[in-house]
This record gives sequence, structure tokens and C-alpha cells, in this order.
Amino acid sequence: MTATAVRDVATVDSFIAGRWSAPGGETATLLHAATSEPVARIAATTPDAATAAEHARRVGGPALRALTFHQRALLLKQLAQHLDARKDHFYDLSTWTGATRRDSLIDIDGGIGVLFTYGSKGRRELPGGTVYLDGPTEPLGRGGQFLGQHVYTPRHGVAVQINAFNFPVWGMLEKLAPAFLAGVPTIVKPASQTAYLAEAVVREALESGLLPEGSLQLLAGSARGVLDVLGDQDLVAFTGSASTANSLRSHRAVLEGGVRFTSEADSLNFSLLGPDAVPGTAEFDLFVRQLVTEMTAKAGQKCTAIRRALVPVELLGAVSEAVEARIAEKVRVGHPGADGVTMGALVSLQQREEVRARVGDLQRAARIVVGDPTRMELVDADAERGAFLPPMLLLAEDAGRPEVHEVEAFGPVSTLLGYRSTAEAVELAARGKGSLVGSVVSADTDVVRDVVLGVAPWHGRVLVLDRDSAKESTGHGSPLPHLTHGGPGRAGDGEELGGIRGVLHYMQRTALQGSPRALSAVTGTWFPGAPRSTPQEHPFRLSLAELSVGDCVEAGPRTVTLEDIEHFADFSGDRFYAHMDQEAAAANPFFEGRVAHGYFLVSMAAGLFVQPDPGPVLANYGLEDLRFLTPVYPGDQVRVQLTAKSIAPRVDADYGEVRWDARLLNQRDELVATYDVLTLVAKTR
Amino acid sequence: MTATAVRDVATVDSFIAGRWSAPGGETATLLHAATSEPVARIAATTPDAATAAEHARRVGGPALRALTFHQRALLLKQLAQHLDARKDHFYDLSTWTGATRRDSLIDIDGGIGVLFTYGSKGRRELPGGTVYLDGPTEPLGRGGQFLGQHVYTPRHGVAVQINAFNFPVWGMLEKLAPAFLAGVPTIVKPASQTAYLAEAVVREALESGLLPEGSLQLLAGSARGVLDVLGDQDLVAFTGSASTANSLRSHRAVLEGGVRFTSEADSLNFSLLGPDAVPGTAEFDLFVRQLVTEMTAKAGQKCTAIRRALVPVELLGAVSEAVEARIAEKVRVGHPGADGVTMGALVSLQQREEVRARVGDLQRAARIVVGDPTRMELVDADAERGAFLPPMLLLAEDAGRPEVHEVEAFGPVSTLLGYRSTAEAVELAARGKGSLVGSVVSADTDVVRDVVLGVAPWHGRVLVLDRDSAKESTGHGSPLPHLTHGGPGRAGDGEELGGIRGVLHYMQRTALQGSPRALSAVTGTWFPGAPRSTPQEHPFRLSLAELSVGDCVEAGPRTVTLEDIEHFADFSGDRFYAHMDQEAAAANPFFEGRVAHGYFLVSMAAGLFVQPDPGPVLANYGLEDLRFLTPVYPGDQVRVQLTAKSIAPRVDADYGEVRWDARLLNQRDELVATYDVLTLVAKTR
Repeated sequence: MTATAVRDVATVDSFIAGRWSAPGGETATLLHAATSEPVARIAATTPDAATAAEHARRVGGPALRALTFHQRALLLKQLAQHLDARKDHFYDLSTWTGATRRDSLIDIDGGIGVLFTYGSKGRRELPGGTVYLDGPTEPLGRGGQFLGQHVYTPRHGVAVQINAFNFPVWGMLEKLAPAFLAGVPTIVKPASQTAYLAEAVVREALESGLLPEGSLQLLAGSARGVLDVLGDQDLVAFTGSASTANSLRSHRAVLEGGVRFTSEADSLNFSLLGPDAVPGTAEFDLFVRQLVTEMTAKAGQKCTAIRRALVPVELLGAVSEAVEARIAEKVRVGHPGADGVTMGALVSLQQREEVRARVGDLQRAARIVVGDPTRMELVDADAERGAFLPPMLLLAEDAGRPEVHEVEAFGPVSTLLGYRSTAEAVELAARGKGSLVGSVVSADTDVVRDVVLGVAPWHGRVLVLDRDSAKESTGHGSPLPHLTHGGPGRAGDGEELGGIRGVLHYMQRTALQGSPRALSAVTGTWFPGAPRSTPQEHPFRLSLAELSVGDCVEAGPRTVTLEDIEHFADFSGDRFYAHMDQEAAAANPFFEGRVAHGYFLVSMAAGLFVQPDPGPVLANYGLEDLRFLTPVYPGDQVRVQLTAKSIAPRVDADYGEVRWDARLLNQRDELVATYDVLTLVAKTR
Repeated sequence: MTATAVRDVATVDSFIAGRWSAPGGETATLLHAATSEPVARIAATTPDAATAAEHARRVGGPALRALTFHQRALLLKQLAQHLDARKDHFYDLSTWTGATRRDSLIDIDGGIGVLFTYGSKGRRELPGGTVYLDGPTEPLGRGGQFLGQHVYTPRHGVAVQINAFNFPVWGMLEKLAPAFLAGVPTIVKPASQTAYLAEAVVREALESGLLPEGSLQLLAGSARGVLDVLGDQDLVAFTGSASTANSLRSHRAVLEGGVRFTSEADSLNFSLLGPDAVPGTAEFDLFVRQLVTEMTAKAGQKCTAIRRALVPVELLGAVSEAVEARIAEKVRVGHPGADGVTMGALVSLQQREEVRARVGDLQRAARIVVGDPTRMELVDADAERGAFLPPMLLLAEDAGRPEVHEVEAFGPVSTLLGYRSTAEAVELAARGKGSLVGSVVSADTDVVRDVVLGVAPWHGRVLVLDRDSAKESTGHGSPLPHLTHGGPGRAGDGEELGGIRGVLHYMQRTALQGSPRALSAVTGTWFPGAPRSTPQEHPFRLSLAELSVGDCVEAGPRTVTLEDIEHFADFSGDRFYAHMDQEAAAANPFFEGRVAHGYFLVSMAAGLFVQPDPGPVLANYGLEDLRFLTPVYPGDQVRVQLTAKSIAPRVDADYGEVRWDARLLNQRDELVATYDVLTLVAKTR
């Protein structure tokens, strides 16, 4: 390239401690994937990571932790809306990376979609406040004054992302969303090759004004030395090659410095065609279509792409032919912006050479059966100047050869392997030594069960594809924010996403022990045994703003009679013998005679505790964890204690959720039943 | 020692691939902690770890995986009973380690207690079968034919324990129980110094005949090279020093080979006295007592012991005096088998030298205020031949000195640090850079909340001690099987125990995606949208053996009338306005007019689906996840679908749990309510 060209293009800047800065020293020039024209310059050196980390810890962390989960979630939703309205610009830049419009959709809309999902899940599935309660309370003593409760609180460090070149938007946002929701500030270190797109998204995100100061920073340049500035509360989430993951993992900051490290590395994912899925079945076609999609989307530059296609030996020929036909019919390689092109360029000429070298390695054990690396028809593009490759399918006569289970060609490349039994297929799949994803295409539930359970320990995600799910399936290669993304062994043994699970990765789990009073004070949730208070008015008369955790109402007792039981049986229609027949009931191992209906007790309890007039309590929308603990016989007197257990105002409505602890007791103070009553309560009267 | 003595003592043997073997080559002689008499010999070389690992993977893993969770749990309970009946022998050997009877109780009964807890939790909290479902189902498409479900399956490798010398029994059993329950075979590598006790327990465990072949093996000798034989499905759980943890973590098998590594390392745990807890309060006494207990139990050789005692500056003198008085009154150092001795020896003379050296390091920043390392009264023991030390309390005038936050003297040693505000105390606690446990002794809930939430990100466990919990509290230093044990940063960033959480560490989480039919086939659990079948007889007539997942009954509809609503209100007493007052109900944001009571719908549904005669269904013991989704108005017709969702026979009773999916629908096929009905069903008719 010429000096003029270099001066013409924009720089990829860093955003550190509240200001943008252009690269100061030596720069590298980034080229258009399809034309080799210069498109941007980026620092060849490491930006000031120490200042960024310090700013994140001093400013970003406290600002985020001052917000509740629900406030953070709402900001994510608003950020998603803001970016969604400005994505045309991102699509333009995405073309430079070699991505077709469809590829860009995965990256850009996929990334924004992660923000939307976390914006929604954060408000629906996380509690009000800032502390996450993990699992049920553990009673640790018989007297009820010593309890255990696991909680999660945000780590006080910074989450550093070190991302791969292939999904500059999705890879950034899928890590940002859970960290932000957890209350942990983020520093993004994008892969240099496609950093201009990440930078554009960060600029828009910052310009939205939604993000608390210090919660998002960008380091454009080399990652070398970034880990040197990290300490015991910091986290690093890496996506990229297994070899880089291993080198980062062996950094002193991780080994000795307490940095929490997670990685998501390329792996040799498999897709299996069931023996039932012969040509002519829906599953055969689904398998072939999915395989071609995974070979060609992002020109095969996906860490989730299918590298090993496991096929019954007798179907190898049929699959190979069907793949060839499908590629001939559907795939047009060329300039990603050109009409009719369905597969774009690899990210760079260097990356093309890398893939060609790996295909060479694979050819020691397999031969190419579809695609010719030396001949390509290109739409609107020049094979010399653009990083193009045709889709290539290889076939290994000996499926046990190590190359096919170890060599990853990170491009439009997949290898067919024949298998003779599901047991053999499971063994072959496991030879990848840990993968992000596997898929099983079969309608035979025995095959599905054996393969899925057989390969599960080696896989972070397993997709079953059949005629039932085909219409809605998001396919083998797409991680979803709802599900964990990552895999054991070679795939990095990391985990991201998975809904709220992904948020918890950025937090510390702590087992709390203490009296109910102490645990209530720490968590803002009432625990049985903690002090309760009876407000002047019935708690159903109190608005969300007036109600306090621990406010309670006690009501009853009501004497349960045989007439009640008869009456309830007649009215509900529930004439189960334990309620109706003294002799048969007494013969039941759990009862001494006719017992009251559990549903009657719950109904009657509501009758005791409810305050009937219109007021702040709007509705009872559910009930959880109901357990009947002691049978109630005619003559028993049952009373109820109802205590406000947790209060969660909604950030975007004029009401919120109140969870009430309900306990029914009999005249001997035995617990008859316990459950949680879920209500919606208005914020004001 | 003499050659004769060496020949006299027993060897610590290894158990590999089904046979016991004495050390073949060079051996080291182990000495009695209190007398320096030789007590055993152990290999100085590494036993045949490769054969053990292979045997575990080929024989132990498959044997364990052939059992259900509940079967494994029952074996753990039986193993606990077997060991409990034979523990006198363990107590005898435990004296050699320097442990008093009370110390041995923590190790031996504590370890057996972990087996009991997992034996119980495994049957109560794990599902029937062999697959653990993690979290709710995620609908991934609008049509209901593409779902996500996270599951855990056992890793197919071996769990290698590398244990510390201080708790040879507890340290082994607390790792064995969760691994065994997960379905993963164990290889124990005890610390050589106290391996004779671990060996004795393993011998008894094997002689019980309860353990499947290959599920438990023992390597007595050096750990050097053990990791070399491990691969991508194996796990290593290490307990010991931070420096050894770091060296193991940087082994190639961990960095590149996919071995999952977890560590629990010594840390500088704190205990804080609240400003409210002045002399004369219950909490002041509790703090002092707990501190002395933690200094003297196991002669302070506990990774959870209090190393930093944070005290309001104005109370430093009072605490120091109270500790001195308490030690004078309660602590007698001497031969662990002698009457009246409350603190035994450190494990070895070498370890005593190590602790003395660390106390020397601490003395650069602190002075000894209680205890004199050069003068000791010993009961029935000789200071030259036994590894005795007195309890020593230091005081650092400058609480900010690095030594007190970094140097761990692994003995009866603790350092007093003064603080001026809770904020300063939180900062000081965090300077440990990650600890296993912290404790807060205060009755002031503001202090408790601020300190607990402040330190939580640096701690795996936090105990609050006050007058309420004092009677039942298990104390600062005791990890419990119910709660996670481990801590971030310096403490190793690992996690063990925590009930079922600890089991999942030995398993792989996999996100499954597919049609309800496919997921049902894989998991043995019915998912909404999967095929259902209507058996010839009502499913309540079918025993556990006859019932299949997916068996269902549909019943109704019943038309809900205004009379029903009135009637239910009168009978239950629930006259909430949304049911009773047309105008007020219509003014509620969620209703258009008077609605049926939710509890009426659930009661009526039971009336529709129940089969009244005596039969296999014994009781409805609860209900979960009830949500009211669509209001029901007078005139609506409601019907119910009840489908067997999961079936879990109890291993030790003639009945089991059946969970039923209940869905109520209206005449427009809208979901009115969903919930799970929990029943007990007899195994046979």
C-alpha cells in the first residue's frame, strides 16, 4: 500500500478513562477482506491498560454497583434499542470484514439480541436489589436460629474481554451484557483485524449516554501486557484459538494473581447423521442443509462450525453428492456487498493462507470430495486481492486418523467420517477432546438418546435436529443467550451466557451463616425465625413504598370440621378416598383417618389472611414451593402466618412483586403447610 | 532413628487396580508428632498412577455410571454407617498426628458426617435416574417445538484428590462423597505425613464391600508425576498451600490437556469484632472464645483458622487481655492422648520450625502479646521430641503492614489488627486477596450488613455470630457439607461441597436443544409438547412400575359460574374484591370484571382429574411453580391436562415420587394456569 492510502484511512481509537485517543506510536494498516484496500489503521502497541483498569475499578464498578439488577437490565434494553436504530452504519463496516449481509445479521443483530435478552431476563429472573440468593436456605441447627444461605455479589474488579476477529459485535456484546448486569465494568480488547467495527459500536454505545462512566472502555491495539495490570478481583474472558488461550491461562496474573480466566476456544465440533436418516427422509435433507450452512456462513470462520460430519458408512456417498448438489445450487462466492453472493471472503489473505495450510494437513488423512481450492468462480471480486476460498468437503477413509480430530481449518472446510455403530460414533466424537457443540440429526429417539448422553460430557451444547424442531431450530452453529456457550477440554473449559448463569460468572458466590435476623439484614429478604412486625394497618393496605420486609399478619384459627371436608369434596368434586372414607384413609401409610384436602387448607388460609377491599395488592399471580407437612384431621384448628419476604419494585411499571411467606400451623404449633404467595402490589396507594 | 525401629513399623500401602501393594523402592519414615517415635513407612517415590487412572476410567467409571443417583447416595449412607462403627481404630491412629480427641472428632466424625449428609441430600435433592436437569426449560421458538434444557452428566474421567496433612479423613471423604454421587471414580493421594490414617479408612471402606470395583483407589507416596497421566475428562482437587496449588495449576495437563483443576488453599481469614461488642456483651465473649478455639483446635493447623482478628482500636487491649485469660484458663498443651490436654502437637518438628520462621516474619510488623515461644508447660510430653508450640497472639500497631496480610503461620498463631471504621475494616479484610472464610461478631445489623456485603467478593464463606445464633453456631472454622468451601484469589478460587453444587463440579453441564420429543427421550422427563399417551386405566390406577412418563389424563370442562365464585368466597372466607365486586374488579389493571379465585381453579382441577378409589397414588404432598396466566370469568369453561412428568422410585421405600404437569385451559385453549403436582405413588399395586 502507498503512504497516501495509509494517511487517508481512519484510525481505530481507544477509549480510556473517559476520553478517546488515537494511536500514538506505530500503527498497522487494516485491509478490506474482499479487495485488499486499506480501510483503517490501528495501534501496533498496547494502549494504556493500567489507566483503563484503574478507572474501571475506581469509577465504573462503584457506579454500576449503585444500581439494582433491574436498573442495569433496563439500561441494557435501552442500549439495545439505541444500537438497533443505528445499525446501518455497522452493516457498512461489516462488509469490510468479508461478511455478507446474512453474516452481518448474525454478528450485529445477534449481538443486539443478546442485549435485549439480558435486558428482559435481568428484570424477570433477577431479584430486586443487588444481592442474588442462590438456592434454598439450609437449616444448620435444630432451633432454627442458625441458617445457611448462598449469595452472589459482584466482584470488585474489571472484566477484560479479549475477542476474536470473526464476531466483532456479537463477541463484545455477549460478554458485556452479563458483566454489566452483574455490576462489573468492562474493558474491550477487540481483535485488531476487525476492530473498526467494534469501535463503531462502542462509540454509539457511549454516545447513547446510557452507560455509567467507566462501565465500558475500549483498548485498540495489542493485547500484550494487558494481563500484567490485573489483580485478584479482575476477570478475563477470552475467545480465540486454543493456543492463545493456553498462553493467557499460564500468565502469572492467572496462575498466582487470582485473575479469574475463562476461555472459549475453537473446537472440532461434530454433526451426526442418524442411521434412520436415509436419503428421502426429512432428516437427511436437514443434515445436508445444515452442513452446507455451517460450511459457508462467515466463510466457515465460526468456532461453532461443523468440522467433523459423522455419517453411517453406507451413506457417505449419498451425503457427499447431496452436499455437492446443494453447494452448486445455493452457494455463490464473491464480494460480500454484491447481489446474489451467499458466501463472502475470509477476513484476510493471511487467514486464507492459514486455512490452506491446515487443509494441507488434513489431506494427509482425507481427500477433498467437494470443492477445488485451485478453481473458483467469483462474483464481482478478484481472487488475487480478496481472501476467497471455495467450500471444501473432505472425506477420511479411516475415521480414526488423528489429523481429522485435531486439525482445525478455520474456514469453509468440513470432513466426512464414516461410522458403523452409534457406540463408534460416540467414540469418534469424543476424540475431539472437548467441543463447543455437537448436533445429532435423527428422528430415532433411541439413537438420539444414546448419542446425546454418550457425547454430553465432551460438549458444552448438543443440538438435536428432526422434523419436529426443524421449523423453529436456530441450528448447530448459533449460540443463544439463553443457553451456555463454551465447552470442556480443548474448547477451553469455559462457560459464557446461559441466561442468568452467565451473570453469575462475574460474581462471587459466598456461603453466609448466621441467625435469621442477621441474614435478613444482609440480604433484605425475610428468613423464617427473623423478627416480624405487625403494622398498624393490614399489610395488604400498604403500598410497595410503605411495606417492609418482615411485615406480617396472623389470622385464625379456624376449626376444620368433617362438614368442611364433605362440603369441599362436593363443591370441588375431589372425592379422593383419604378425604371421604375413614377406614380406607386409615389404611394409607401416611394418614390416621380422613384428612382435610390440601387445597381446602390453602383456600381457607387465603380466607383468613386476605383483606378484601380494593387497595395496593392487585393480584395473586402464583404460588411456589407448597409442601403439606402434617395432615389435618376434623377438629384440628388451623391458623396462618403471612409475612412479607421480599419486595421487588418494577423499574418500568407502577407496581412490583411481593413474595409472602405463608405458614399454616395447627393447635399443637406443628407446621401444617408452608408456601410462598406471589402478589403484585402497587407502588403507591 | 534406628534401623530396627524402621523395620518394626507398618508400611502405608497403595491400592491400585484392585490390589494392595507395599512400597517397592525407597521409603520415608513417619514419626509420631508428640514423641518422634517412628510409626510408619511410606514410599518416597510415585506409585503407579497410570495403572490406577486407567483402571478408574475403564472399570470404576462405568460401574458408578450404571447406578442411579439414589443408589449411589444409599451406598454413601451405608459406607458412613460402616465407618462409624469402626472409628475407634481411626481415633488411635489420629493421636500419632498430634491430634487431641476433640481434633480427631472434627476430622473423623466430620468426614463421616459428610458421607451421611450426601447420602441424605443425594436421595432428597437429586432426581431419579442418572441425568441432572439444571434450571427451567427455555422455550426457544414460538411454536413450542424447539426447547432448551441444561443437563449435567458425569465426566468420564477420574477424580484425583491431592490432600493436605491436617485432615486426612475429612479431606478425603469430603471430596469422595460428591465425586461418588456424581458417578466419577476417585484416586486418593494423601499427604505422606498422615497417610497411615487415610490408608486405614480406605481399607475399611473397601472391606465394607459396598464400593463398586475401581471407584476408590489409593496412591501412597509422592505426587510427582501424577498429573502426567491425566487427560481431558479427568479432575484434580487439591488442598494445601497456595504455592503448591500454583505449581499444579501450571502443569501442562491443566493448561493444555483439559484436566479440570480446583484448589482450596490456605488463606489469611479474618474475624471482626463489631464496635457494639464491648466487654460485657455476649458478642465480646463469643468473639474471644471463638478466637481461642480457632487458635488451638488442631494446634491452629486449619486452613480456615483466624489469622487476622480485626478489632476496634479502642478494644485492642481488652481483647488481648481476655484472650490471655481464656488461654490461661482453658488451654493445656501436651501429649494428645493425655488427660486434660486441650491442645496437641503440630504434625512434625519440621512443621514447627516452619511456623516459628513465619512468626519471625510476622514479628517484623507485629509483637507477641500473648504466649511465649521460648517457654511452655507441657503435659506428659517433651518439648525436644514433640512438635509443640504455645498459642501466640500478635498485635500489629500498624494494621496496614503487608506482612500481616500475606504471611501465614500455619499453627496456633493469630494477629490482632485495630480498625477505626467499618469501611477501614472491610479494606483490611480485602487485603488478604481472597480468603476461605471471614466472620463478623456483632449484634448491630447495620455493621453486619456493611461488613458482610463489603467483604463478600473476597470470601467463600462468611459467618455472622451473635447471641441469637451462638447456641447453634458451628463456628468460624468449620466448613459444612451443606455450604460451599473454598474462596477466590489467594484461597485458590475453587469450590467444594455446597450440597449438590459440589456434585455438579464433577459433571459437565451441557445445553441441550431440540424438540420436546427428543429432549424427553434423552432426559426421561416429559416436556410440554412431547407426545402424551392415555393409558387404558386412569394413571392414578397405575403403580410406579406400570406408569410411564407421558401418561396423561384429560378431564373437564367445567363451566365456572358466578354462583361458584360466591359459593367459594363464602366457604373459604376469601372475599377479595376482585372476586366479589364487578365494578371494583373492572377497575383493577389486570381484570375485566369479577374473576374466579385461583385456589378455586386448582381445587376444581383436582376434582376433575382425581381418581377417588384407593390405589397406588398415596398422597399429594405438594405443588410447585403455580402461575395464574389468564383470568377466568363467569361462563368460562375450564379443563385440565395432567401428565406424568418424572418418576423417581425411592431406593429404600416401597413408593416413590411422581411429578405431574398440570395445565388448565379455557374454551379458547388459552392457558389459565400451570403447575406441578407432587405425589407419592406405590411401587406395586
